[in-house]
Amino acid sequence: MSVWNGIQALGLICFAVLLCSPGASAKEPPRPNLMPWPASVQAGSGSLRVDSSFSMALTGHTEARLDRAAQRFLRQLSRQTALPLPVKASSKPTLTVHTDHASKEVQELGEDESYLLEISSDGAKIDAATTLGAMHGLKTFLQLVEVSPDGFTAPALKIQDKPRFPWRGLMIDVGRHFVPLDILRRNLDGLEAVKMNVFHWHLSEDQGFRVESKKFPKLHTLGSDGLFYTQDEIRDLIAYARDRGIRVVPEFDMPGHSTAWFVGHPELASGPGPYAIERKWGIFDPAMDLTNEKTYKFLDDLVGEMTKLFPDHYFHIGGDEVNGKQWDANPKIQEFKKSHGLKDNEALQAYFSQRVQKIVTKHGKAVVGWDEVFIPGVPKDIVIQSWRGQASLAQAASQGYHGILSNGYYLDLGWSTARHYAVDPLSGPGANLTPEQQQLILGGESCMWSEYVNPENIDSRIWPRNAAIAERLWSPQNVTDVASMYARMNAIGSELEWIGLTHRTYYPQMLRRIAGPGASPEELAALRRLSDVVEPVKDYTREATAPAEPTSATPLNRVVDAVLLESDAARRFGDLADKFVASSCRDADTGARLRAQFAAWRDNDAKLQPLMGRSFLVKEIAASSQDLSALGAIGLAALDFAAKGGAAPDDWKTQQLAVIEQVKKPKSQLLLMPVPAVQKLVEAVAAGGSCASPKP
Amino acid sequence: MSVWNGIQALGLICFAVLLCSPGASAKEPPRPNLMPWPASVQAGSGSLRVDSSFSMALTGHTEARLDRAAQRFLRQLSRQTALPLPVKASSKPTLTVHTDHASKEVQELGEDESYLLEISSDGAKIDAATTLGAMHGLKTFLQLVEVSPDGFTAPALKIQDKPRFPWRGLMIDVGRHFVPLDILRRNLDGLEAVKMNVFHWHLSEDQGFRVESKKFPKLHTLGSDGLFYTQDEIRDLIAYARDRGIRVVPEFDMPGHSTAWFVGHPELASGPGPYAIERKWGIFDPAMDLTNEKTYKFLDDLVGEMTKLFPDHYFHIGGDEVNGKQWDANPKIQEFKKSHGLKDNEALQAYFSQRVQKIVTKHGKAVVGWDEVFIPGVPKDIVIQSWRGQASLAQAASQGYHGILSNGYYLDLGWSTARHYAVDPLSGPGANLTPEQQQLILGGESCMWSEYVNPENIDSRIWPRNAAIAERLWSPQNVTDVASMYARMNAIGSELEWIGLTHRTYYPQMLRRIAGPGASPEELAALRRLSDVVEPVKDYTREATAPAEPTSATPLNRVVDAVLLESDAARRFGDLADKFVASSCRDADTGARLRAQFAAWRDNDAKLQPLMGRSFLVKEIAASSQDLSALGAIGLAALDFAAKGGAAPDDWKTQQLAVIEQVKKPKSQLLLMPVPAVQKLVEAVAAGGSCASPKP
Repeated sequence: MSVWNGIQALGLICFAVLLCSPGASAKEPPRPNLMPWPASVQAGSGSLRVDSSFSMALTGHTEARLDRAAQRFLRQLSRQTALPLPVKASSKPTLTVHTDHASKEVQELGEDESYLLEISSDGAKIDAATTLGAMHGLKTFLQLVEVSPDGFTAPALKIQDKPRFPWRGLMIDVGRHFVPLDILRRNLDGLEAVKMNVFHWHLSEDQGFRVESKKFPKLHTLGSDGLFYTQDEIRDLIAYARDRGIRVVPEFDMPGHSTAWFVGHPELASGPGPYAIERKWGIFDPAMDLTNEKTYKFLDDLVGEMTKLFPDHYFHIGGDEVNGKQWDANPKIQEFKKSHGLKDNEALQAYFSQRVQKIVTKHGKAVVGWDEVFIPGVPKDIVIQSWRGQASLAQAASQGYHGILSNGYYLDLGWSTARHYAVDPLSGPGANLTPEQQQLILGGESCMWSEYVNPENIDSRIWPRNAAIAERLWSPQNVTDVASMYARMNAIGSELEWIGLTHRTYYPQMLRRIAGPGASPEELAALRRLSDVVEPVKDYTREATAPAEPTSATPLNRVVDAVLLESDAARRFGDLADKFVASSCRDADTGARLRAQFAAWRDNDAKLQPLMGRSFLVKEIAASSQDLSALGAIGLAALDFAAKGGAAPDDWKTQQLAVIEQVKKPKSQLLLMPVPAVQKLVEAVAAGGSCASPKP
Repeated sequence: MSVWNGIQALGLICFAVLLCSPGASAKEPPRPNLMPWPASVQAGSGSLRVDSSFSMALTGHTEARLDRAAQRFLRQLSRQTALPLPVKASSKPTLTVHTDHASKEVQELGEDESYLLEISSDGAKIDAATTLGAMHGLKTFLQLVEVSPDGFTAPALKIQDKPRFPWRGLMIDVGRHFVPLDILRRNLDGLEAVKMNVFHWHLSEDQGFRVESKKFPKLHTLGSDGLFYTQDEIRDLIAYARDRGIRVVPEFDMPGHSTAWFVGHPELASGPGPYAIERKWGIFDPAMDLTNEKTYKFLDDLVGEMTKLFPDHYFHIGGDEVNGKQWDANPKIQEFKKSHGLKDNEALQAYFSQRVQKIVTKHGKAVVGWDEVFIPGVPKDIVIQSWRGQASLAQAASQGYHGILSNGYYLDLGWSTARHYAVDPLSGPGANLTPEQQQLILGGESCMWSEYVNPENIDSRIWPRNAAIAERLWSPQNVTDVASMYARMNAIGSELEWIGLTHRTYYPQMLRRIAGPGASPEELAALRRLSDVVEPVKDYTREATAPAEPTSATPLNRVVDAVLLESDAARRFGDLADKFVASSCRDADTGARLRAQFAAWRDNDAKLQPLMGRSFLVKEIAASSQDLSALGAIGLAALDFAAKGGAAPDDWKTQQLAVIEQVKKPKSQLLLMPVPAVQKLVEAVAAGGSCASPKP
């Protein structure tokens, strides 16, 4: 056996020669399909059969949570394989799980999550110090079960695994769009599958206060349109998360982003009111009156109630994006500023933060807050969550403060997974910290801000992309191969389907709604061909490019809402085009595949015309459809030049690039993703260099 | 306005000239997409906008069930359109629903289900005698909402509707495979959508007794592997059904199909025992001891308990398929037969049936039973459910007995929807009955026997096909146009998705499992191309052709379990081939489309090879894959002859037909559905008739 570290193993096509199936070729995906990649993997020989005789045993420390984890494991194994697995114990279990001792009653940051997993053709065993590690080992085993020529199997190997960072989370904003509990539950299942251990529940926003408060019921009754979680529901979800080794960190965002609080409690605000639940997106003026002692009394009571409801040691107080306009407009606050020697609004907010931090501390919790709450001199047990970036985080760490990174992990911005994957909490300024300072950087959290998500598309915004971020936070820092990441992520995407996540389900269903139920298969195929190669506009351009100002009542039924955030088809097309150019346009097979693709694009607009005449939701993307046809025609012309040999004429190139400039522009909030690859092809053909001059 | 009856409207391409969208062409599907087609539809002019200002009001009779129906309507409307609909009432409602009076507290057979629905560009109203009719009207409205060039709309029209038959049901067998409650619930939602009003719950089988009995707990604790419904769950499901205008008729199958009863109560059986839950499929020997008075005492107690649990007036006692072997082998029963002058086992069963019918009647219920329980002289309030066919039903009706038809509606047999659709309870022998006798035929039930269904594929076995059977039982007898039925059924299939039925969801997901998570998009496309044109073997051939004897532990993860029961692609291919032959092979466009299809088939086997090397579940269908390639090659050769003109040589024809004979044979329990159409093409080309001799 040879020990492979992550980075070495990932470069290989097959996991190990012995594990390659007979039909193995360069086209096979990397195996095993693990994500996050473990700290250490040693290949063994042979494989373990997984069939309906599969059984498991738990030894060592036992608790009800482990039994439930085992039942969940069997259920999931059965879903992945459709094997009806016996529930009864066997004298010779296929898988033995040994757990040394319990984890903490309330899960803590930095508990031991390590495990050892050994699989041979005879059986498998997991050894873990704590329940948390045992559960991780079970999830790794599930990822290893694969279809083979001889049934379902798991490869023989030895995995020694533990996380790189102790804080690996996902934040879901349930304020802007309420997210029903069943959706949260299936996302917790997803977090468990990729070994994330924090669910950060962003519970209050200008658009909604989503928690039942028994002390201040007007908060949720007037501030949520009836869309809130009861305390019983919250306790259930916390128990559900704990069962999966996940901490639940609640966030109550203040002093800004709090319009919904003021609907029932205008006395908390700095402006005169009255207030209504905010329906638009953005940064709004309402902010808490930090000069009023009643504000702190209220927060003391509320934090007291909520810290009892949420057992986690950390309590998130938000703190982001206060524009200060209500403070500026309030003479009393201006007076306070002067009398307390607070030089600007930043200082005002610092004052507020310190007061709230004291309240949270008084209730036995530690504060988490966005960058803004980091004020030199605050107690050291605060955790800074950075939406601003590594520099901000490194600065805090250099002064001895803990931090987690979210900048670079905003799922709603529509970045490619590769771009998220490249973001490391300890890269950039973080790399220059001392090892002790680096220890203060606890990990990170991906963030799902919910302006444009609903029950239909939220899963596809989070998954499977979040698995790559989970890997960044769990796996060794040198696990960075992008091609391997995509291959493994897509494979994990299939497993996540059996968990119940709907990241692949609703896209075709939404397209069918857009086309109308009477659309023919050919029409649907044309719509799909276009949709498969577009992505929503990126970053924060969606508001600016919207046909009408979006609000929480805007239907999310357009093509931009249905398509995936990252076009797999465009990425694969780009690889193909690169391959063709790299072959000096001589690779005939690749050329033929490109030609077929271009022809299909060129002809697609005509095929989509009938639907445009019938559906306003298809009509909306007419310009993108024309662009795709234009792009197909350009590609075909480029291939023609490439076939003829010799450089394409300059005026042709100029003309094509002018069209490409037009096609690059977003239309109906969609970007046509294959454009850069076609542009490269045109430039290569026109250069008469690599493409026009094949080597002899 | 002109009054159209169903059959006339269905023949038209567009619903009315005024309703056709500007882009309307012969390719557009028939509109509106209603299923079941109403008793009468009058076209109006214009359409009603359905946007986020939509509101509704209930007038006349009110009850909580109507409010819930209205909430459900709004939720479903919101799902279909993704419009966030306001919950609050409006002063000028878009839709007014007027209900005259309540329906019965326990829904009865033959209650008034009629409704009137009028839609104009100004608004819509539903008028119904009872809550049942109002709920049907709401479902019709939902089917009418369509995407248009100007947003979502519903066409102006007037519908007067009522059902042809009062008993329109679906039976689900939860004995052979347990069906979880959430799956039953979504199927009840489906029944409501297509206006079926009976859920026949087949609760006991050799393979499981699925109801909690408080009187005889060993029935469910020992007879169900722990997979049973508690009485609370059953009450909830009945309430859920009642909310949707659906009666729940429970079936306790006896004296055969009852092995699972005997596990806990061997004293009920005619053989010595002991008994174990049956794991195989078929007809088994165990049958109740009908000579033992304790059997009747037991049944009296059990029926007493169950008739309290199930409020419906009808109680199904099964009665089917007793092979009599245990009776023949039991001297005491033989003695009883002699002493009671019962000449054969049929007479023995008649004796048993009469005794059980008396018990059921004593508990205030009317008996339903399969054909076997029909014994001349039984009380007239019995309902015969016929698995044997119309003749059996007509015979009972001619003697004054009520009946419902299930023969022809067995969803598990894999028939085409057209074939189910052609089955009419009053065709054949039923057509010769007097009008009064015809009144005795109450309707029918589709049946989902569950040997080969699990949570993944049960919906696709039932839906959308069951909508066509629902139409047969609701719509006027002359609504029979098959092309219209398929077009409307596929459209309804899209709406059923938004209800939560998964008839389209799991097929691609199961294919991804079969291929393995690492399969490339190209490999998956090759698997899908083949899967799309095969169907499982039909009728009762599945056991006979199985690779190993199937049991309840057999994983349902093979291609035969994943593919749909009816290949849409093959049906459309057949239409295309017919069109080509009918054009004397001169229609160049159709010819080109056929050629592309044949070429894709011919080349598919090569593309599927890598997966065959990696997955046993793909390897299994190697022969079908080769067959598809062979079929593609034959098709291409036929097109070549057609292009050349003149008849193809005889030996070529002989050769092709010989290959076709081979290809016709099922392989790995799959039928290649385009074979007959290719055969027709070969014969046409070879005949040198229509194809070789184009008209001048």
